[in-house]
Amino acid sequence: MGRIQRFVDKADQLTPTLIQSTVYPKQMIEVIQDSEAFQGWNARGIGSVDTLQQQAFGKDESFILDFGDHQVGYLTLSIKPVGSPPDAPLRLKLIFGEMPCEIGESFDDYEGWLSRSWLQDEIINIDILPCEIKLPRRYSFRYLKVTVVATSVKYKVAFEDIHCTTVTSGDLSIIPSLPETLTDDLKVMDRIGIKTLQDCMQTVFEDGPKRDRRLWIGDLRLQAQANYLTFQNYDLVKRCLYLFGGMTLEGGEVGACLFEKPEPHVDDTLLYDYSLFFVATLCDYYMASRDRETLIDLWPIAMDQIKIAVRRLDDRGIVKDDPSWWCFTDWQPELNKQGSAQAILIYCLKRGLILAEELSLADSAVLITEYISLSTEGALKHLWCEEKGFFVSGSEEQVSWATQIWMVLAEVRDAKANANLLEKLFNENPDIGLSTPYSYHHLIEALIQSGLRDKALEQLRAYWGEMVKDGADCFWELYNPMDKRLSPYGSNLINSYCHAWSCTPTYFIRKYY
Amino acid sequence: MGRIQRFVDKADQLTPTLIQSTVYPKQMIEVIQDSEAFQGWNARGIGSVDTLQQQAFGKDESFILDFGDHQVGYLTLSIKPVGSPPDAPLRLKLIFGEMPCEIGESFDDYEGWLSRSWLQDEIINIDILPCEIKLPRRYSFRYLKVTVVATSVKYKVAFEDIHCTTVTSGDLSIIPSLPETLTDDLKVMDRIGIKTLQDCMQTVFEDGPKRDRRLWIGDLRLQAQANYLTFQNYDLVKRCLYLFGGMTLEGGEVGACLFEKPEPHVDDTLLYDYSLFFVATLCDYYMASRDRETLIDLWPIAMDQIKIAVRRLDDRGIVKDDPSWWCFTDWQPELNKQGSAQAILIYCLKRGLILAEELSLADSAVLITEYISLSTEGALKHLWCEEKGFFVSGSEEQVSWATQIWMVLAEVRDAKANANLLEKLFNENPDIGLSTPYSYHHLIEALIQSGLRDKALEQLRAYWGEMVKDGADCFWELYNPMDKRLSPYGSNLINSYCHAWSCTPTYFIRKYY
Repeated sequence: MGRIQRFVDKADQLTPTLIQSTVYPKQMIEVIQDSEAFQGWNARGIGSVDTLQQQAFGKDESFILDFGDHQVGYLTLSIKPVGSPPDAPLRLKLIFGEMPCEIGESFDDYEGWLSRSWLQDEIINIDILPCEIKLPRRYSFRYLKVTVVATSVKYKVAFEDIHCTTVTSGDLSIIPSLPETLTDDLKVMDRIGIKTLQDCMQTVFEDGPKRDRRLWIGDLRLQAQANYLTFQNYDLVKRCLYLFGGMTLEGGEVGACLFEKPEPHVDDTLLYDYSLFFVATLCDYYMASRDRETLIDLWPIAMDQIKIAVRRLDDRGIVKDDPSWWCFTDWQPELNKQGSAQAILIYCLKRGLILAEELSLADSAVLITEYISLSTEGALKHLWCEEKGFFVSGSEEQVSWATQIWMVLAEVRDAKANANLLEKLFNENPDIGLSTPYSYHHLIEALIQSGLRDKALEQLRAYWGEMVKDGADCFWELYNPMDKRLSPYGSNLINSYCHAWSCTPTYFIRKYY
Repeated sequence: MGRIQRFVDKADQLTPTLIQSTVYPKQMIEVIQDSEAFQGWNARGIGSVDTLQQQAFGKDESFILDFGDHQVGYLTLSIKPVGSPPDAPLRLKLIFGEMPCEIGESFDDYEGWLSRSWLQDEIINIDILPCEIKLPRRYSFRYLKVTVVATSVKYKVAFEDIHCTTVTSGDLSIIPSLPETLTDDLKVMDRIGIKTLQDCMQTVFEDGPKRDRRLWIGDLRLQAQANYLTFQNYDLVKRCLYLFGGMTLEGGEVGACLFEKPEPHVDDTLLYDYSLFFVATLCDYYMASRDRETLIDLWPIAMDQIKIAVRRLDDRGIVKDDPSWWCFTDWQPELNKQGSAQAILIYCLKRGLILAEELSLADSAVLITEYISLSTEGALKHLWCEEKGFFVSGSEEQVSWATQIWMVLAEVRDAKANANLLEKLFNENPDIGLSTPYSYHHLIEALIQSGLRDKALEQLRAYWGEMVKDGADCFWELYNPMDKRLSPYGSNLINSYCHAWSCTPTYFIRKYY
């Protein structure tokens, strides 16, 4: 793997000091089944936390705290014995939930495809009481269920203090205020989008603080765009770009994601679109920051991504579709990725051209211009189906929402044609739809870019607005108003309920409305 | 409660620095059901630990290590990922077992009466790999089962190193060697007794390093006696005596047990015999150490125990038996404690008299002599049943082994009568027998004291020797050759398999054989 230690060191120097706050629980709750509630679970207040200190809990007794909003941080518990001197260890079970489902449903029954280790619970044995325990791991949660698994017959325990020390690299105090005239629902969506972004902003832009707790470039691109209009933490984007640029895969590709610890290392996941997004993210960063030094440093990595990506074009100028590659685009299980990959290539080539021109690299600009022509002509000639009036993808000529959206974003055709395509898309509603907020983001961006601002706002309200109505305090990784337990991982328990790629309502609202 | 801070401070200054050693596992094993094996479980070697490093373990895979002998200490694990970079936390379950039953039987099904928290298992979640983890809690174990509860589909884990850092305040290097002529079985019993004592010797004489991990005076008395002939750690006995003397209960009684952390504090358990054993333990300590300063300091506490104990004598000179008191004597569930309590009182009064005379405290000596006469005459007049030829206990005139043994140890009658009584005890074998090594200790001591040395040796071999044949590497808290799953706590899982009060074969062998 290609490692440029100077870049990794530069990223290291940009590691932010996290802002800490102390958050206390707001109320005691119970989590009950409720067919009207989101995913069938309702968190209902049952009393003030002021009474907690006076209560003593014995074997098999439990309580649930609501911290009032989504939190990312470290838990501290102060526990004292009640009764005789504690003559046996205390065994506690702690369950942390971003959502009521995590408290209501048993983790023991989890059968999803992602690791059960993402579910946030701990069994802890405490030998000495009273004690103050600060758990070493970071949790992402709003709800905390504490169960006394075992004490002894001679003592119970009381919880004198439970609090969370939250961490973030997003400084709320510098976010510009919104115009008073903005409607309340958009203000709420903006606030929740910012909270989502804030909780994902740690020492990198994480995809989700519950899962995967790491830097994915697909998420980074959207987070960075929202960040420029809110927290304006340019250094954090810069750090992430240097990490990706400093640790590429064996073939020189930018990896899809990377890890910070025990020392920075890139994951072995390679996604065609995600490698290309290095170019787009660098372009966005430069446009927002005008940081020419970083652009000069990282341009060779960006140009490498372009050269690697165009190698996948066949002699017709079309991205080859075969079983050997991975392109993300969306979690839609039936989606053929050829069309969207072709469009994402064009989209990123155009951003590469902007950068090459900015750097006055004439040879590169000529080369990229040729690539843009080749791939755009290929798309129009071989992927545009005049009969269907849609772009198609793969050998079965699949018509999907994602392919149309990305062809619009890539501006393969003119604005008028794009607007017509999107309207036709809504009218005919092909089966292969969108299954993530990530894709809804691109839909809305495409609508706005095509001048369909009202339709874009309608979609924003129909999707993120529905999440708000369903009780979101952060925006969720997955959401389908028609199937609220939807998970691409086999269980709604494992979904991330504070997810970077869902934070963009604040971007749309601040940029366009 | 009566606290004499000077005594507690003196105890604090005597806190030993523990001796540490590094112990590596000796072999990989499986634990299989085997009706011939002790408690039905057999730990069978299946290979060298040298191969462990080469193996990779994924979800639901596990292995069991045998550390070759009983260990008390801290576990360190070095874990590395195998495969792709770890993209989810690692969740491990660790089960520590002193005995194969703890590995073979599920803790989830535990329904004993003592806290489940004594069962030694941990669930740990590890966010960053590779890692070296030193678990913060101390464990008492020979066997360690490691189960990988969850990794992810992309990686497994290998265990590069697992070791135990053992701790003890018993220095093996100063133990006198045994005569070559001693038979092998006694040498083995001596070695195991010493190992048992060593693993219980921490910053106090613990009753058992698995459970209760604390200082009980009943155990202390026997440990101290074994210690004088082996580790000769006088300071540790002294520390324990100062702790008990420095923290008495509200009525001035020495508590049955105490805790060291978070700061020294006495438990609220009061046992008639245990409070009195402060006198006997102090007497033994003085005889072994000739530490007059400690005797002078602690004598008033000892005299208090005598005065408090004789308050329980009725006008016949008999210890009152009613539902309000607790006397331990033995775990035998049917045992009436009046007779043994009476004898223990006399036994301890006699040791109190020795100390009063040593200190030339004439008034105290006279008073104690009067108490001895009163209680001895009471015992002979009201508890000796000429018709049965046994001492009886309680309103139902119960004949038990324990009452006879303690009356012998208290020398209520002369040596010849005592020998006859013990022989009659064996011949008639009354129903209310002995259920702990603690009581077998007193049986053997009584036999030796009555000149029945061969019978004593026969009993030592029949009891502790059988434990050895059943695979003991330390001597167990509970043992009944006729009922090997015996537990006074409702489950053999919770029994302590390295228990202080069972260490005394080394005492008998070194003192008498």
